[in-house]
Amino acid sequence: MSGSETAPSEASHIRIERAGPVLHLWLNRPEARNAMTRQMQREILALFDSIRDDRSVRVVVIRGAGKTFSAGGDIKNMQAAGSPQAASGGIDELREGNRRGGLMLHTINTAPQVVIAVVEGFALGGGVGLSCVADITIAHARASFALTEVTLGVVPATISPFVVARIGLTQARYLGVTGARLTGEQAGAIGMAQIVAEDDEKLEAELKAAINRILRCAPQAVAETKRLMPRAAGVLEMETIRDLAADAFVRAVRGPEGREGTLAFVEKRKPGWVDVIE
Amino acid sequence: MSGSETAPSEASHIRIERAGPVLHLWLNRPEARNAMTRQMQREILALFDSIRDDRSVRVVVIRGAGKTFSAGGDIKNMQAAGSPQAASGGIDELREGNRRGGLMLHTINTAPQVVIAVVEGFALGGGVGLSCVADITIAHARASFALTEVTLGVVPATISPFVVARIGLTQARYLGVTGARLTGEQAGAIGMAQIVAEDDEKLEAELKAAINRILRCAPQAVAETKRLMPRAAGVLEMETIRDLAADAFVRAVRGPEGREGTLAFVEKRKPGWVDVIE
Amino acid sequence: MSGSETAPSEASHIRIERAGPVLHLWLNRPEARNAMTRQMQREILALFDSIRDDRSVRVVVIRGAGKTFSAGGDIKNMQAAGSPQAASGGIDELREGNRRGGLMLHTINTAPQVVIAVVEGFALGGGVGLSCVADITIAHARASFALTEVTLGVVPATISPFVVARIGLTQARYLGVTGARLTGEQAGAIGMAQIVAEDDEKLEAELKAAINRILRCAPQAVAETKRLMPRAAGVLEMETIRDLAADAFVRAVRGPEGREGTLAFVEKRKPGWVDVIE
Repeated sequence: MSGSETAPSEASHIRIERAGPVLHLWLNRPEARNAMTRQMQREILALFDSIRDDRSVRVVVIRGAGKTFSAGGDIKNMQAAGSPQAASGGIDELREGNRRGGLMLHTINTAPQVVIAVVEGFALGGGVGLSCVADITIAHARASFALTEVTLGVVPATISPFVVARIGLTQARYLGVTGARLTGEQAGAIGMAQIVAEDDEKLEAELKAAINRILRCAPQAVAETKRLMPRAAGVLEMETIRDLAADAFVRAVRGPEGREGTLAFVEKRKPGWVDVIE
Repeated sequence: MSGSETAPSEASHIRIERAGPVLHLWLNRPEARNAMTRQMQREILALFDSIRDDRSVRVVVIRGAGKTFSAGGDIKNMQAAGSPQAASGGIDELREGNRRGGLMLHTINTAPQVVIAVVEGFALGGGVGLSCVADITIAHARASFALTEVTLGVVPATISPFVVARIGLTQARYLGVTGARLTGEQAGAIGMAQIVAEDDEKLEAELKAAINRILRCAPQAVAETKRLMPRAAGVLEMETIRDLAADAFVRAVRGPEGREGTLAFVEKRKPGWVDVIE
Repeated sequence: MSGSETAPSEASHIRIERAGPVLHLWLNRPEARNAMTRQMQREILALFDSIRDDRSVRVVVIRGAGKTFSAGGDIKNMQAAGSPQAASGGIDELREGNRRGGLMLHTINTAPQVVIAVVEGFALGGGVGLSCVADITIAHARASFALTEVTLGVVPATISPFVVARIGLTQARYLGVTGARLTGEQAGAIGMAQIVAEDDEKLEAELKAAINRILRCAPQAVAETKRLMPRAAGVLEMETIRDLAADAFVRAVRGPEGREGTLAFVEKRKPGWVDVIE
């Protein structure tokens, strides 16, 4: 949603690096504190669509270039789109862009891979939303999280369900109606971040440790767990959940990973899927 | 629900002070640690009803006179109402009073203004409920929160949904079944309070800072955010939420606040709604 | 689910001690770090069924023999049950055992008594699930909590709803997909434990204090509160919740406990149900 947005043939707004089972996705507009453009959203969506069935990618690390995560939506673009003139004439790009942002967050949230967000510098508005759909958010202790929308006269809309799922309704409402800034330390205390690192060096060490922890886990079991957890949070009857859970459990124990994992345990060796990065 | 309750012509059980965009609502029965009477509930309900469409009131601060928040329901009254005789004969005042308490909490919880609860001294039973419907609860570190109902043989009933929304089901259950006391510090750690102040002076400074933070936010956007957040926490389908959210977002960007806020951002000036208290 | 499981006539896998109003339930397979067998699950289920209507039991303390809580399901048994041969031929014991585990957790979760879990050493997989259905979890600061399933190629299935209820969806997902270990200290910080004790001596002191806190509470009111809280967390309409809550409140105030409790308050004496352990 950037005023400077241009044709898809232009330079990408993200940068992708593959390192064995790990995909590093960099938001790559450091000059705009990685504010999210429509192009960036489309590129991220395309990336996650392309790896949905690829179990060789086991971890996706999302972080921002220039030591800052993301300043959220592009405000210049909102300003331009806010005029009554922009509202007339054909498909409403503002509305469609917002819905696409929601779809992007949902797609990341339901990715079968483990997603790690590394938050340095600022995570504002949509940047908070993005940090809330990661399985693991590693925050620099002095990072700055804020839902700044209401200070601009707009609302945290698309990101709300994901922020609420992360920190609960009333903490989300508190941040949403006040625009209050949290440090990475404070974000950790309310569960917005899972890991807090005191400095740059520790941040990289925590990231590496988290990746290696995931590479000890069975990829299909991870995907299944990510699929099952939200259903366990839903309003299903307990009896139904027990059936669902029992089915998932049996499928896992009888599947190739479950057989390998339990056998490796009995044989006191590492399962075949264990991998390590240096 | 006080044994000493009298006709509505009597002195009010609350005290209201208006300071520009801020309404200070004092629970004003310090001699009874601000235990809630039916009259107090009626007066609070009437106050929130009267400001529902008034965007000139942007913050409501609820606190208790005499440096204590509220001891909850009036137990002498419960004792009187508990007798079988009281149960007979016409409308059941005990039940109606309880339902009115629930309506009061719901009304505060859905107020379009930002509500701040300042908790010093005791927040017991219904007092905890009241502190849980504020957008921001500022607690004195040595304040005392407890669901004391079960120690009296009664149950935390009306307040339960609000306590659960605040701190989650199992923390609410823990407090409900044990009557355990939390300090303000501990209340902050589990998300019952958003801000914890070490002493009286810091409490007032935090309150002022919180008010000024809100006065930087656009009033209609705040109201819209408060309306949207609970829907994001509900069981709506993701597709439906995306539509709802996109509509709210577009409405906000195109509304007078969104246009002013984004324009002010582009012009590097403060939006017109920004206000400050001294 | 132990490979060494034998006929019901064998020695019990739990140990029960009654001390006045307190029932101590010890998981009693210290040689296997109290890994849960089918027999253990059946014995726990039978115990909770037998005390459902017994208000003379007011507290159940669950802890593991040998200073460790529970290593979860028995992996050797899973390995044996994972073979395709095991899947054929009549009733599927793996699936039934898993469902019985879910029923056990649900039964403990809805017990009318207050349940305390004391977690020392390890709580892994199903052991975490068991710790999450207690009303109060007291953790040794150096205890170790982890959802280790995915490191074995299986999934945290049956326990998921209870872990999600305890710490929220995204923290549960984080632990589930990474198998990350939390210390008791960290478990306290995210609400998995309510009380954290620095050493063995403090652990026993906290347990005693928690029991005595419960023995000050009215047993029927406690049971009613445990029944009401989950309904307050559900998706009922606010109007319906107010009715439910008002009914529960009136019933409590008019019941023998409410009358005794409020009268004792007025008469400045302890209610008749107050008990103390030494």
